[in-house]
Amino acid sequence: MTMSRRELIKGIGASAALTLTGAPARAQLPGGGRAKVIDIHGHYTTVPRALTEFRQRQLAEIGDGSPTLLRIILNFSDDQIRESVQQQLNFQRERGTDVTLFSPTAGAMGHHLGNEATSFVWSRICNDMIHRVCTLFPNNFIGVGQLPQSPGVSPKKCAGELERIVKQLGFVGVNINPDPSGAYWRDPPITDRFWYPLYEKLVELDVPAMLHVSASANPNFQGTGGHYIAGDTTVFMQLLMSDLFTDFPTLRLIIPHGGGAVPFHWGRYRGLAQDLKRPPLTELLKNVYFDTCVYHRPGIELMLKTIPIDNILFASEIVGAVRGVDPESGHYYDDTKRHIDAMTFLSESDRQKIFADNARRVYRLKV
Amino acid sequence: MTMSRRELIKGIGASAALTLTGAPARAQLPGGGRAKVIDIHGHYTTVPRALTEFRQRQLAEIGDGSPTLLRIILNFSDDQIRESVQQQLNFQRERGTDVTLFSPTAGAMGHHLGNEATSFVWSRICNDMIHRVCTLFPNNFIGVGQLPQSPGVSPKKCAGELERIVKQLGFVGVNINPDPSGAYWRDPPITDRFWYPLYEKLVELDVPAMLHVSASANPNFQGTGGHYIAGDTTVFMQLLMSDLFTDFPTLRLIIPHGGGAVPFHWGRYRGLAQDLKRPPLTELLKNVYFDTCVYHRPGIELMLKTIPIDNILFASEIVGAVRGVDPESGHYYDDTKRHIDAMTFLSESDRQKIFADNARRVYRLKV
Repeated sequence: MTMSRRELIKGIGASAALTLTGAPARAQLPGGGRAKVIDIHGHYTTVPRALTEFRQRQLAEIGDGSPTLLRIILNFSDDQIRESVQQQLNFQRERGTDVTLFSPTAGAMGHHLGNEATSFVWSRICNDMIHRVCTLFPNNFIGVGQLPQSPGVSPKKCAGELERIVKQLGFVGVNINPDPSGAYWRDPPITDRFWYPLYEKLVELDVPAMLHVSASANPNFQGTGGHYIAGDTTVFMQLLMSDLFTDFPTLRLIIPHGGGAVPFHWGRYRGLAQDLKRPPLTELLKNVYFDTCVYHRPGIELMLKTIPIDNILFASEIVGAVRGVDPESGHYYDDTKRHIDAMTFLSESDRQKIFADNARRVYRLKV
Repeated sequence: MTMSRRELIKGIGASAALTLTGAPARAQLPGGGRAKVIDIHGHYTTVPRALTEFRQRQLAEIGDGSPTLLRIILNFSDDQIRESVQQQLNFQRERGTDVTLFSPTAGAMGHHLGNEATSFVWSRICNDMIHRVCTLFPNNFIGVGQLPQSPGVSPKKCAGELERIVKQLGFVGVNINPDPSGAYWRDPPITDRFWYPLYEKLVELDVPAMLHVSASANPNFQGTGGHYIAGDTTVFMQLLMSDLFTDFPTLRLIIPHGGGAVPFHWGRYRGLAQDLKRPPLTELLKNVYFDTCVYHRPGIELMLKTIPIDNILFASEIVGAVRGVDPESGHYYDDTKRHIDAMTFLSESDRQKIFADNARRVYRLKV
């Protein structure tokens, strides 16, 4: 594909039809009596069918080398957007979540598919869709973006879209894929200087990033149970081995899915840091946070008793990786809030930190 | 390297100098009053320096294409072997372990280094070294082997060495590296028919395998905290997705390091099995076991409360991945036994299963 960046941006203009020119999506909820509950990890997995069809056509066209899709105008009505998030809103109501940090489907980012131009178009469209949801439901959703990453391409090229989603769309954070090669892990570790231009921009904009892999193209790694959890664990160990936060002392990174294996193996990581003459993990915890996407009570309990409360951010990843109801409990596997509610050893202050205050601090939220 | 298999085997004859022609290493300990403690996961990380030097020379020679090492006779005296395991024996005494299932250093298997011939020679030598230890200390060590795997090479070629270590050396199990490519994951998943010849031989010999990766050549994966734990998690998800145990109902596989992230994310795996229309995890647990190499008390506690007791085998991986003393507790991180001892909710029968009976059943031990 030989399209220039200028042509690309012009083509992308079509997708601007997606974006309402309203206020930024940073929701301004009135302070209420009840402590607020902020879910920092929700994906727009319920997009209108036409968006999924667009992506399928985009990838098919890459295959036959005749890209025409940039001229397609994706016209979604407000009603279509509203309809698409009804399930998300129902879950919020049922579970008692007030607001969700809402990002494009992680598995669908697919940075390994197509090329740099594919990724640029797709990311921009997905981010604009998030912005539309946040504009229609400013009390329920706050935007988090995806980036036009591509394997082997400098993350510097993502800086423009990062700036756009924060400054123009009001997003409060972004998902960075630490392995754009799709579970082949061919790019440098996230602590390599290769990635530094992205961290410079994050620091400049003062927004955090979640390190979230996308789909796996490697048959060794199933996605949501293999690549996701292995990836979370892998990036934590990369961070442990590096001086990234000496170079970026205000950078804030979130590891999703409870940090992969990390809380379960906290003793191993403490011991490895010691053996490898690295600083104690408490140093790393000045910049690294974990969400609570752990789908059974003993896991949540271990996490809350092992990781400092200030580093734990409530999340459920609805509507997401695991969608069923546990026949043993009668509750959804991903209803993580009820486990945290049930932890009697937590003080009310601890609970408020997990449900809202930590998210406010890390994401600089005004809600 | 153009050496034929016949020449290789002839060359290997040199390393036979390593092997005493004593009885198989299946220890026959007298039954005592106190319940026995069997550590199923120990590595010979304390080999005499000459063995490490041999390996360095072997790999250097691969580099310059002039293999001569097959003519080197590695003559270790009994005293050298005895001396090399003193630290291992001290740990056994101090921690109250009776016997260790003892295998070559996992990180040093290095199947991605050199080629098929390199791996063949190195594996045979390492297994013979284990046999010498087990012959000198039949009450303390029982042999577990490594295999001459090589990326892209059919595991069928490992069947001969597997048969040798079980039938001639009396080993009770073997470590299979699910990723011989060294953290690039280029071979098929362990559930692929590519691996079936190895499972056929395991079933025929009625010995289990531990799925244990080796060193990482991929800068994304630190070894003991990255590749090991990510690998454990990855292979569990491969097993969850497959019908391997329908084809091999008596095959027994152990996932080390507490199963990676699996017990921590047990709810996720239960939910994924359900969403993906796979059998419940209880089916998988007829063939899959986890060791207790989890280096802090909350992790051990979660494991014992989440995974059925019949599927948990005591292990510490001494002298292994984490070697320091935790300044907070004053105990070694890898002293996992004291955590299990401290779990008051375990019945004596449960404890005996974890410490010995499960290992006896899975490894068909006579001790």
